[in-house]
Amino acid sequence: MIVKVVNPNTSGEMTALVERSARAVALPGTRVEAVSPVMGGPASIESHYDEALSVPGLLTEIARAQAGDPPSDGFVIACFGDPGLDAARELADGPVVGIAEAAMHAASFLGRGFSVVTTLARTEGRAWDLAERYGMTRFCRGVRSCEIPVLALEDPASDAFAAIVAEARRAVADDGAEAIVLGCAGMADLAPRMTAAVGVPVVDGVAAATKTVEGLVAMGLRKGGHGEFAAPPPKAYTGLMSDFEIPKPDIC
Amino acid sequence: MIVKVVNPNTSGEMTALVERSARAVALPGTRVEAVSPVMGGPASIESHYDEALSVPGLLTEIARAQAGDPPSDGFVIACFGDPGLDAARELADGPVVGIAEAAMHAASFLGRGFSVVTTLARTEGRAWDLAERYGMTRFCRGVRSCEIPVLALEDPASDAFAAIVAEARRAVADDGAEAIVLGCAGMADLAPRMTAAVGVPVVDGVAAATKTVEGLVAMGLRKGGHGEFAAPPPKAYTGLMSDFEIPKPDIC
Amino acid sequence: MIVKVVNPNTSGEMTALVERSARAVALPGTRVEAVSPVMGGPASIESHYDEALSVPGLLTEIARAQAGDPPSDGFVIACFGDPGLDAARELADGPVVGIAEAAMHAASFLGRGFSVVTTLARTEGRAWDLAERYGMTRFCRGVRSCEIPVLALEDPASDAFAAIVAEARRAVADDGAEAIVLGCAGMADLAPRMTAAVGVPVVDGVAAATKTVEGLVAMGLRKGGHGEFAAPPPKAYTGLMSDFEIPKPDIC
Amino acid sequence: MIVKVVNPNTSGEMTALVERSARAVALPGTRVEAVSPVMGGPASIESHYDEALSVPGLLTEIARAQAGDPPSDGFVIACFGDPGLDAARELADGPVVGIAEAAMHAASFLGRGFSVVTTLARTEGRAWDLAERYGMTRFCRGVRSCEIPVLALEDPASDAFAAIVAEARRAVADDGAEAIVLGCAGMADLAPRMTAAVGVPVVDGVAAATKTVEGLVAMGLRKGGHGEFAAPPPKAYTGLMSDFEIPKPDIC
Amino acid sequence: MIVKVVNPNTSGEMTALVERSARAVALPGTRVEAVSPVMGGPASIESHYDEALSVPGLLTEIARAQAGDPPSDGFVIACFGDPGLDAARELADGPVVGIAEAAMHAASFLGRGFSVVTTLARTEGRAWDLAERYGMTRFCRGVRSCEIPVLALEDPASDAFAAIVAEARRAVADDGAEAIVLGCAGMADLAPRMTAAVGVPVVDGVAAATKTVEGLVAMGLRKGGHGEFAAPPPKAYTGLMSDFEIPKPDIC
Amino acid sequence: MIVKVVNPNTSGEMTALVERSARAVALPGTRVEAVSPVMGGPASIESHYDEALSVPGLLTEIARAQAGDPPSDGFVIACFGDPGLDAARELADGPVVGIAEAAMHAASFLGRGFSVVTTLARTEGRAWDLAERYGMTRFCRGVRSCEIPVLALEDPASDAFAAIVAEARRAVADDGAEAIVLGCAGMADLAPRMTAAVGVPVVDGVAAATKTVEGLVAMGLRKGGHGEFAAPPPKAYTGLMSDFEIPKPDIC
Repeated sequence: MIVKVVNPNTSGEMTALVERSARAVALPGTRVEAVSPVMGGPASIESHYDEALSVPGLLTEIARAQAGDPPSDGFVIACFGDPGLDAARELADGPVVGIAEAAMHAASFLGRGFSVVTTLARTEGRAWDLAERYGMTRFCRGVRSCEIPVLALEDPASDAFAAIVAEARRAVADDGAEAIVLGCAGMADLAPRMTAAVGVPVVDGVAAATKTVEGLVAMGLRKGGHGEFAAPPPKAYTGLMSDFEIPKPDIC
Repeated sequence: MIVKVVNPNTSGEMTALVERSARAVALPGTRVEAVSPVMGGPASIESHYDEALSVPGLLTEIARAQAGDPPSDGFVIACFGDPGLDAARELADGPVVGIAEAAMHAASFLGRGFSVVTTLARTEGRAWDLAERYGMTRFCRGVRSCEIPVLALEDPASDAFAAIVAEARRAVADDGAEAIVLGCAGMADLAPRMTAAVGVPVVDGVAAATKTVEGLVAMGLRKGGHGEFAAPPPKAYTGLMSDFEIPKPDIC
Repeated sequence: MIVKVVNPNTSGEMTALVERSARAVALPGTRVEAVSPVMGGPASIESHYDEALSVPGLLTEIARAQAGDPPSDGFVIACFGDPGLDAARELADGPVVGIAEAAMHAASFLGRGFSVVTTLARTEGRAWDLAERYGMTRFCRGVRSCEIPVLALEDPASDAFAAIVAEARRAVADDGAEAIVLGCAGMADLAPRMTAAVGVPVVDGVAAATKTVEGLVAMGLRKGGHGEFAAPPPKAYTGLMSDFEIPKPDIC
Repeated sequence: MIVKVVNPNTSGEMTALVERSARAVALPGTRVEAVSPVMGGPASIESHYDEALSVPGLLTEIARAQAGDPPSDGFVIACFGDPGLDAARELADGPVVGIAEAAMHAASFLGRGFSVVTTLARTEGRAWDLAERYGMTRFCRGVRSCEIPVLALEDPASDAFAAIVAEARRAVADDGAEAIVLGCAGMADLAPRMTAAVGVPVVDGVAAATKTVEGLVAMGLRKGGHGEFAAPPPKAYTGLMSDFEIPKPDIC
Repeated sequence: MIVKVVNPNTSGEMTALVERSARAVALPGTRVEAVSPVMGGPASIESHYDEALSVPGLLTEIARAQAGDPPSDGFVIACFGDPGLDAARELADGPVVGIAEAAMHAASFLGRGFSVVTTLARTEGRAWDLAERYGMTRFCRGVRSCEIPVLALEDPASDAFAAIVAEARRAVADDGAEAIVLGCAGMADLAPRMTAAVGVPVVDGVAAATKTVEGLVAMGLRKGGHGEFAAPPPKAYTGLMSDFEIPKPDIC
Repeated sequence: MIVKVVNPNTSGEMTALVERSARAVALPGTRVEAVSPVMGGPASIESHYDEALSVPGLLTEIARAQAGDPPSDGFVIACFGDPGLDAARELADGPVVGIAEAAMHAASFLGRGFSVVTTLARTEGRAWDLAERYGMTRFCRGVRSCEIPVLALEDPASDAFAAIVAEARRAVADDGAEAIVLGCAGMADLAPRMTAAVGVPVVDGVAAATKTVEGLVAMGLRKGGHGEFAAPPPKAYTGLMSDFEIPKPDIC
């Protein structure tokens, strides 16, 4: 099966990192296609503004796969804000899973509650919104940030790892967290080292979403043809957005 | 004061309708600027896909006003999905209010509960999500759709009015709704006729958001300089999205 | 339009303060009628007991306006406990808005969450109850008190302002509040000074409720003739309460 | 022990009925004092207006007992709106229990969920508010009214009993109610006949509150000296409300 | 009436303690039957594992009473996890009340909120689950443990009392608790001393459940013949569990 | 890897069915061990009583695997009540997933909401409790039963399939369900036929739990050594339950 993992920002290093994380857990028979949007977008996602503006690029990647370039059995949205998840579900035939969604679900199997450790404080609200949307508020004991810019995670000279571990330890001590959810795709490779350092299970959403997509595909589960996530209705798009037009089906 | 009312779709008729609705309740001293996005976008908003893809155009309009073309004291997002509200709040200095948000708040003052009457069933979920976000779930007794495409609302030959009234009456009888919230900007001019026909107060979000923005401006209330809705951090944007780049401030 | 602002306690100084706050934001064409109950009541409202016993006086003021002395287009209940709101809505034809209600709604437009800063700890529970009733629990990050008796707020020799500012700063630092709601009508004039001192928007409910009533009146929105807030049914009242009797309508 | 049961309306027949219901379940050693307010009030309670205006009379009765006329060990508020409960708890030294509160608690022991059957539709919202306040929303499967005025319950010529039974049967069939809560003190004597007619347990709040008060007194449980329900602070009351003044304690 | 109080663990000292607590508040006419399971079970209940495995013994005690050895009018489950409550309600004809359930309900009458003080931190989650189930989350301000093993409570040489008092005082100071719920049947005799030491009402669930059962029996309230808690359907049981078989009724 | 699938009832036919369902989706490298408890238990699980009494047998199976007979990497509890899940998590080193848990999680990826179709009405409450526990209440639009005894599902002469399909169609039409969750392990083989018949995705929890366990094992995720699900503390067990004793570790 082909699982397309879309990193909605334009950092090639982060795309490569995300690809490694997905491949590390994927089945031998799964082909992982990790991409950044070919149409461009934000260098990183650190605000509602960035997140909203990453969605056109993300949707273009879903559409490319739907057009068979290459065909994908399922999709992972590899940014912890799960940008464009609803729209992507409308567009894709196969399952689409966000990394925040998958990580929170996985963590809920591991203990009474988890805390999220993320980058910037201004994104904490988004994490809480997602926890609510997925029904995970009752498991989410805290959302904590360490004020590290997303792209600094890739910098080996930064103190990022130490700061994230320190925050995770505070989550265990003060929130009573029995698991940690990594709150940024750029942290994907930290899970094993952090599990060792913190002493509770640490969940990387890229891995969790990849396994979730594989599981849904193996069970043959995908959205039905009707309802909220049915294909979007045909619609004219104009101006700079005209490439997003959905033509009416030919009937003859 | 200047209140900019952004219709995030590209229908000029709907923009004109929205402008009339805002002006009908605005103060004499308020200048209403109603626009569709100059950069283009979807002809109407009837899916998560359309909604997500209307946001770049909407944000461009906020940015234009921030750049002084013309300067605006506050903003109304005139689509019942309140697309891009969080991102717009980051971008704007003055208050930004969505029409679903304002209509639900207003209806909560009028009775124990309201029902939303909207266009397509596939958008009902979005209305419930917004009710939750704004804390209005406890007032929202139902979301009902009459399967009228958004643009058909403008067609005088359609049965739209009769269908909407019928659905509103069912909301009163079956949901116990004590007020009706109109679930589409394209219904903005129906409120007075519907109040007469249904016998409970009917709230148009365009009017409600316009008055809410005027009130916040009059009180001098706007977001603080820190927190979740602070201005988005500077960021490189590439490719087709490069116009959205936020440059770093010159420091010299 | 006439907006009647009822201070349900008997402090003339607080009534004057409330009147100034309402007038400061009211439209030029709005006549603000600020009153204390002519029938008497508690000197201040600092307990459930005081609050319950302020309601007869409040309702008498609503009834006077309904009887045309003078006729009012809408009403503000100027005590942060919003005493008698439901009963006042039954009695009044025009909109009735409480200052806690209006302040919380307004604050919800300004950031992810607000904290309330109030007078006595024993009233914190009431503030939480109101947040729940208005759907604002998700925005309310804290209710904090500074143990200042209500009437001491008027005493220029007191340290009230410094204590309130200190508590508001703690709300910003510890609760993550992005706005402050003033939890007592007696604080109404502090909002501008506090905004400057605390650095986040500070909301005075008297101003917010006045603008909310003006907005509802401008839109022609008022309760319907049926439902929970319909006029109370005719009823005999006896003893000291006999003035509250609602006579049966003459039918001839 | 003495349990004072206050019917907050002025119907002597209803007070007599309430007294019989309390006595039917009280211990041999319990003296039941059932009263209507001596200061007067509404003939029945069918609106928020009536409920608010029954509270002064109710509080006068609590105060009389506190003054030793006669001294009471605990109190029952015998109106399903539980009017003035918070204020009464402040005033009384012993436990105060409302009949809605006690009935909902008792019903929660008997099955997965209950429905309330009450008099007028306009009071349904109040019942839901109380269910929320007491934490009973998860057990409350419905609130149903049969549009019988409160005082008609006492009229043997009315069809009240048949109408209430019919509504209770609908609650069992349509709501899945496994118990019925009687939504008016005037229904107190119907419980046994209704249990027989409907086939599920039917709970009368007057009996339930009486037993709850007895139980709390037997365990020596009463509010602490601090916190939200501590005695109201001393306060001047003026005008027609001057009898409610709470004098400052003499200190010498 | 006979109230059977089942201590689901095998500690005879704890059964004796529970018996004293129940008898201290029971009516003169109530016969309290306190037992440990005759079939055996865990020495104490400190994990989900212990709790699950205490249930067969508990159900055997309910079944014995149902079989008339001796017949019981109602039952108390005297372990703060309320193990087997749903199953016991199916099996018993009379009311079954858990001590966590009764204590939380009672505490909700005494103040705005309570905290639970329990033994081991690993049981805190269970207390929160029960609070949710009973609708008491809104009253439960904290669950605190003092890491005292259950059986150490009986050891006069332990510092148990001092540790529990210290934790209760922290609950009052930091959680704002206005009442304390004792989180273990083994603490049942501490309530009066703790009330004196802590200054807020302290609720022992054994006493509360005993009074609740007495009250329900006095009102003649018990589950209906249908619904979730109807008698379990006849069923073959095999192997070591064959004694739990419920035979089909003879029909002839 | 070895995944042990425990059917907590004693029906060999159901165990065989569950085994087929798990194997149909398991990876080639996964060995599925499906068992009924060797110690015996209820023939089927149709009440809280049956569920509670299935837990000792279930835990014995977990303990056998922990003792290496054979060693298992993870566990599936194959009964829709997810009996003993908390206790099993304490006992097992590897992940334990219930079929209700896994099915509800999987369904939440497929649409806005799902309905559960189960066997007996008396188990509906349990399904709602589990939805709450897992955070899935917001996705669960209905729980519907068709009054088919569990063991009749295996009878080819029964109308079970037609009845379940009819109920599922009602869920789609009346609840707005966009997916169906099968509410009994005995329905595990119906998913593909039902998807075809109903037109929305139908989720079998046995398959979903098997894939979930495989995914967690692949990611190396398991509970931490501390917290609520740590191994149960050593404890004496007596009488018929003495086999469940957890001895103290030898320390030398």
